[in-house]
Amino acid sequence: MNTQFELMNRYWRAANYVSVGQIYLMDNPLLAETLRAEHVKPRLLGHWGTTPGLNFIYVHLNRLIRERDLDVLYVCGPGHGGPAMVANTWLEGSYSEIYPEIGRDAAGMGKLFKQFSFPGGVPSHVAPETLGSIHEGGELGYALAHAFGAAFDNPDLLVACVVGDGEAETGPLAAAWHSNKFLNPKVDGAVLPVLHLNGYKIANPTLLARMDDAELKSLFEGYGYEPLFVEGHEPMAMHALMAGALDRAADRIGETQRQARGDGWSGERPRWPMIVLRSPKGWTGPKEVDGKKVECFWRSHQVPVSNARGDAAHRKILEDWMRSYRPDELFDAGGRLLPELAALAPEGLKRMGAQPYANGGLLKKDLVLPDWKSLAVEVTRPGATNLETTRYMGAYLREVMRLNADARNFRLMGPDETASNRLDAVFEVTDRVWMEGIEPYDVHLAREGRVMEVLSEHLCQGWLEGYLLTGRHGLFSCYEAFIHIVDSMVNQHAKWLQSSSALPWRKPVASLNYLLTSHVWRQDHNGFSHQDPGFADFVANKKADIVRLYFPPDANTLLWITDHCLRTWNRINVITAGKQPQPQWLTATEAETHCRAGAGIWEWASTCASEEEPDLVMACCGDVPTLETLAAVGMLGKALPELKIRVVNVVDLMTLQPDSVHPHGLSDAMFDALFTRDRPVIFAYHGYPYLIHRLTYRRANHDNLHVHGFQEEGTTTTPFDMAVLNGLDRFHLALAALRRLPGIGARSASLAVLLERKLAEHRAYVREHGEDMPEIAGWSWPAR
Amino acid sequence: MNTQFELMNRYWRAANYVSVGQIYLMDNPLLAETLRAEHVKPRLLGHWGTTPGLNFIYVHLNRLIRERDLDVLYVCGPGHGGPAMVANTWLEGSYSEIYPEIGRDAAGMGKLFKQFSFPGGVPSHVAPETLGSIHEGGELGYALAHAFGAAFDNPDLLVACVVGDGEAETGPLAAAWHSNKFLNPKVDGAVLPVLHLNGYKIANPTLLARMDDAELKSLFEGYGYEPLFVEGHEPMAMHALMAGALDRAADRIGETQRQARGDGWSGERPRWPMIVLRSPKGWTGPKEVDGKKVECFWRSHQVPVSNARGDAAHRKILEDWMRSYRPDELFDAGGRLLPELAALAPEGLKRMGAQPYANGGLLKKDLVLPDWKSLAVEVTRPGATNLETTRYMGAYLREVMRLNADARNFRLMGPDETASNRLDAVFEVTDRVWMEGIEPYDVHLAREGRVMEVLSEHLCQGWLEGYLLTGRHGLFSCYEAFIHIVDSMVNQHAKWLQSSSALPWRKPVASLNYLLTSHVWRQDHNGFSHQDPGFADFVANKKADIVRLYFPPDANTLLWITDHCLRTWNRINVITAGKQPQPQWLTATEAETHCRAGAGIWEWASTCASEEEPDLVMACCGDVPTLETLAAVGMLGKALPELKIRVVNVVDLMTLQPDSVHPHGLSDAMFDALFTRDRPVIFAYHGYPYLIHRLTYRRANHDNLHVHGFQEEGTTTTPFDMAVLNGLDRFHLALAALRRLPGIGARSASLAVLLERKLAEHRAYVREHGEDMPEIAGWSWPAR
Repeated sequence: MNTQFELMNRYWRAANYVSVGQIYLMDNPLLAETLRAEHVKPRLLGHWGTTPGLNFIYVHLNRLIRERDLDVLYVCGPGHGGPAMVANTWLEGSYSEIYPEIGRDAAGMGKLFKQFSFPGGVPSHVAPETLGSIHEGGELGYALAHAFGAAFDNPDLLVACVVGDGEAETGPLAAAWHSNKFLNPKVDGAVLPVLHLNGYKIANPTLLARMDDAELKSLFEGYGYEPLFVEGHEPMAMHALMAGALDRAADRIGETQRQARGDGWSGERPRWPMIVLRSPKGWTGPKEVDGKKVECFWRSHQVPVSNARGDAAHRKILEDWMRSYRPDELFDAGGRLLPELAALAPEGLKRMGAQPYANGGLLKKDLVLPDWKSLAVEVTRPGATNLETTRYMGAYLREVMRLNADARNFRLMGPDETASNRLDAVFEVTDRVWMEGIEPYDVHLAREGRVMEVLSEHLCQGWLEGYLLTGRHGLFSCYEAFIHIVDSMVNQHAKWLQSSSALPWRKPVASLNYLLTSHVWRQDHNGFSHQDPGFADFVANKKADIVRLYFPPDANTLLWITDHCLRTWNRINVITAGKQPQPQWLTATEAETHCRAGAGIWEWASTCASEEEPDLVMACCGDVPTLETLAAVGMLGKALPELKIRVVNVVDLMTLQPDSVHPHGLSDAMFDALFTRDRPVIFAYHGYPYLIHRLTYRRANHDNLHVHGFQEEGTTTTPFDMAVLNGLDRFHLALAALRRLPGIGARSASLAVLLERKLAEHRAYVREHGEDMPEIAGWSWPAR
Repeated sequence: MNTQFELMNRYWRAANYVSVGQIYLMDNPLLAETLRAEHVKPRLLGHWGTTPGLNFIYVHLNRLIRERDLDVLYVCGPGHGGPAMVANTWLEGSYSEIYPEIGRDAAGMGKLFKQFSFPGGVPSHVAPETLGSIHEGGELGYALAHAFGAAFDNPDLLVACVVGDGEAETGPLAAAWHSNKFLNPKVDGAVLPVLHLNGYKIANPTLLARMDDAELKSLFEGYGYEPLFVEGHEPMAMHALMAGALDRAADRIGETQRQARGDGWSGERPRWPMIVLRSPKGWTGPKEVDGKKVECFWRSHQVPVSNARGDAAHRKILEDWMRSYRPDELFDAGGRLLPELAALAPEGLKRMGAQPYANGGLLKKDLVLPDWKSLAVEVTRPGATNLETTRYMGAYLREVMRLNADARNFRLMGPDETASNRLDAVFEVTDRVWMEGIEPYDVHLAREGRVMEVLSEHLCQGWLEGYLLTGRHGLFSCYEAFIHIVDSMVNQHAKWLQSSSALPWRKPVASLNYLLTSHVWRQDHNGFSHQDPGFADFVANKKADIVRLYFPPDANTLLWITDHCLRTWNRINVITAGKQPQPQWLTATEAETHCRAGAGIWEWASTCASEEEPDLVMACCGDVPTLETLAAVGMLGKALPELKIRVVNVVDLMTLQPDSVHPHGLSDAMFDALFTRDRPVIFAYHGYPYLIHRLTYRRANHDNLHVHGFQEEGTTTTPFDMAVLNGLDRFHLALAALRRLPGIGARSASLAVLLERKLAEHRAYVREHGEDMPEIAGWSWPAR
């Protein structure tokens, strides 16, 4: 009775036992005595339904790893099945190595059970605390994108990705099947998706489980896979089926990789295998409770026996259930897994709980970065030249691509906008990766390429997260308005980083870097639907040590910030910069000084010396607000030369917060030194004005802060007209300044009249001619 | 030479001509003279690539409508092809009826051309301004969900939904194909998807276009459709193919509906047809420009001849291109479409630009609503009973379902959480709609059901938008944290509502209503990944006349608010309320008064009379903050009976904004009457504290406002411990109050010590026992 499948079945029983124990017990882990109320947790919180299937897959992957000496990363899409991942990593021993207080014996088992979903213990989901995981078991939809992200540029890795049939209904997951069109068998690892159809969600059947095999086969062949079906409920038969399917899949993957990595590979996209596993929800759990169907049904989703503490009959069901795994055949009297079972797990770093790929910071190598100053714009005087700012970032990224080509650890993601966003210099040294057909007239498409473009922000984000979490680097360039598509993914990633940072064994991963461009103020080909600068507001809600928001006003500041972001770790860096030609203000040296400070006085743009007490502060954050502010200062300074205007530019938005709240925050003394304690401040900001108020509400001069920004007024119109519609243009800013300076007198009043007239003139002109007035389109900062 | 296809081809040429004219010309619309620079717009903004295909489909749908007397709604997924929709609605005459200043003659054509993508004109995308559309041409991904949403409960409607091959790469679109599992041929209309493979996005081929027909066929059969392929580039051959495919599709749809609507329907899910249209990108446009491939390539995506104003050679290409449509064979000398072509369009309301389904407010019937007070909770004294608040909303929604069953104009959407969210009373009168197999043990699944559950927030949101925009009503219940999944969709819908409101011909549609529950404070089975109350922050960035944020503290307030929201139009109403048992505070009458005001003093909970000047204001917004605030007041009042504490509850968050900013905003006088001008205010808020500061930063007493809320600290733990982790619990609130009341003296200090000790005691207890201390779990508001 010790055939391999029988042993594996016992190992599976052990995993199931340890899973149930985690959900229910706070004492008596080995059932040494009859279960009493006080052994059962008062609050039963967890998800049983998916767990036995996850355990089943884990046990079978263990066999595959041992037999073939593979490096396998287990991406657990049904992250609610946290008990399964914890159970298996505990059984294989990796858990106790990281958490030595949870030993591999009865006492450890007791603690393991109690801590689960318990205050001060471990979360109910797969989480950063869970070994072997790069994938938070929170919001569903991203398992497969994470899996492919992990596999890119990791040729020796096999990512086994379990996709629950609930998750399979989500949009991001449905799109992620197409990731096979970007996976190169020569240079990337493999992804083996296991679609786990256990039939039900919380209270419903699932769409895919109720499709018949013919339709499923057709669907996945259409997606480009070879589906292998494993279906049933009788354990021993299922073990044979699953082992056969995994062997076929591994053979096929191995053969595909050997061909692609040998000579004469045709470059054809392979038909990768995937497994469709139909197994009962709540498999091996209670068949019925209180006369209602539980196993094979959605009632097993969470806690199938809900009142095991308070109700003796429920408790009896629980005890019978746990004893059905026959713990005495699994563990010795001291609670240690029997040796013949322990021998089934892989060893050392091959154990999925110890897999370094799942703790990417261990593998991360710093990028080799170019000298950004060698790529800087020459600025002879502020505003002398108009240039496309992001084009310089493109040149910088090209050098990053070049310098790290051999390391193969940097990728650029974006929804088909790399060239549109003026980053196309990267195509001098790499291409877009593309595993579909390539025509002779195609441009910069290749089997190997480090730029990934797909019209799915979800995929870009998910791939990049998987890529970073396995120890690599990258940047996602996106239209500003559409980055909201991934709000909730950013949310989950920020939470992952926050939780990870508290775990000493999780090593820091490279930061998640964004370039947001084609921004709200320059939607030339588009309109209102493409205008939303609110991602900053969303990100600002996350923990201060995680998030950074940068608004470089020109190319040299953008270069410094890009360079800086690529050197950071465990952060979310959001850079917002336009791609259209715009004035360049700072030399490389000035840019460096300014960016290091995060905010500063631009004396050359002010009408008074930095040390003088100004009558007025004109502050700006963002490229268009900076331009409009300087134009306003130009007009005010010319008309009212005695007026002392200080210009403050903010490049790192988090400087506005107190230093007690954010590590980049300015002290109150520094803030007051920039913004004064009592002068009016006209603050031109790139996004929704509220954010500035929110960040500064505790500052001394807050009541004098008058913020202009996006007022949710937009359409297809000229760049300057967009500013006018939202009151962010030079005329509105200058008028706002005049309103706050009542003492200036008659000349001020006549200037106000002039400005109002200019506004009216603009409105008429732009509606007649369809472009901005030459004096505005051609405006440049006057040399002084 | 006047066969039907030849006439249709001429009509198509006319549509293409009018499309190109919109992108390029501001004068000389009929090319009466040789094109000169000043005829060409200075800023060329628009998208040509998709446009000829959209025109082709429009012309063919016109034939289908005429021949079969159909009601067809055209959902234009590639909304960047705005010129096509404008061109066709102008050609058919519907445009000039709504916009009489744009006549059906040369002068009108001139204005039509100039206004496109021009300041003060019309947006470049399909937008609310576009006739016949319910679908904004902004962010891609939602065309098919909108189409199905429109078709539900509209049995006489055929929704033709063009899905661009760019959009087809998005996640939401990939999932939306499964909507056929929810469409009942007996009671719903039909959706005919047209997957338009023109091969390219902005600068790349598309995934689906580069798949071969066998893989595409397999994919769409797997999704449950019968794909009909129309492929080619020679116009006359393509007309024959397209007409054939449309006829086959319409036959099949008609036959399916006849069977389902006759006797003896098996209830089987039909295999609906869909069309795969492969046609060249930029079809009929310039083949090459500047020696580079344009037609059939991504270079035709936007404006293929970019310098037609400044460069004579480019202008010549443009003129040749426009003349290639032979305008003299299309329009008479006065610019009127020739009668034999005009006769090809449908008439009256059958014209797709005049289709009432596309202006849902025209069709909307008010819901019949129950008397909410008949469902109210009896509250004998505040806090006497603990009840699941959302269960009462469920009873209310059941009555809405019942009262509007015959009208078939109300649906409830949610990702598999209707029962979990305690709304399951609706299943007393309806079911979940489900077109897959139904097993005998399934619960509340039926072919006809008004509850729609799918584990895709994108689908729930997209369906509901389509349903509302075609004149019906609904509510989306969602886990609070995961509503961020649809942030960007809400954004687009808010923009749609804002733009629509400015168009007198667009009639108001029912509001988009959300119940957010399973909220941040009660994530019992889940943890940190499920904790995010930031949707309110996101929504608050939208225009004030569109958004409402409600935080009912108990069942009767929730009932009033639900009733209210279902009576409103053109709004986004967000209701946040917990589903766990909690104290009930207000009688129905009190709830009504309180909700009408939006915020008010709870004198019964205060320790002083309303008209007295308090020492301290304890404000609360949200159910858990209200509970904790009252518990804190209870402790403070008992220990320091001389302390005058006023309790203010905010149920309508927008009351906090000035009345100049939001229509629900309180005047400064009213605000000061509640919050005082100088007393400390401890404000317990459901979400991120910043939002309260942001809404109140202009109020007199803002500097005394101390907000407690979610601090991004979470895990799997007890409800009370969650509050403690974030400083929102009774002890922290009471301590915060004491800190702001330095004059209270020794008793205050000893109370502070006691509170600190209680906190420590709680921490130890919860980590030992896994549940809250009995005195906290069992706390109730003391009768006075």
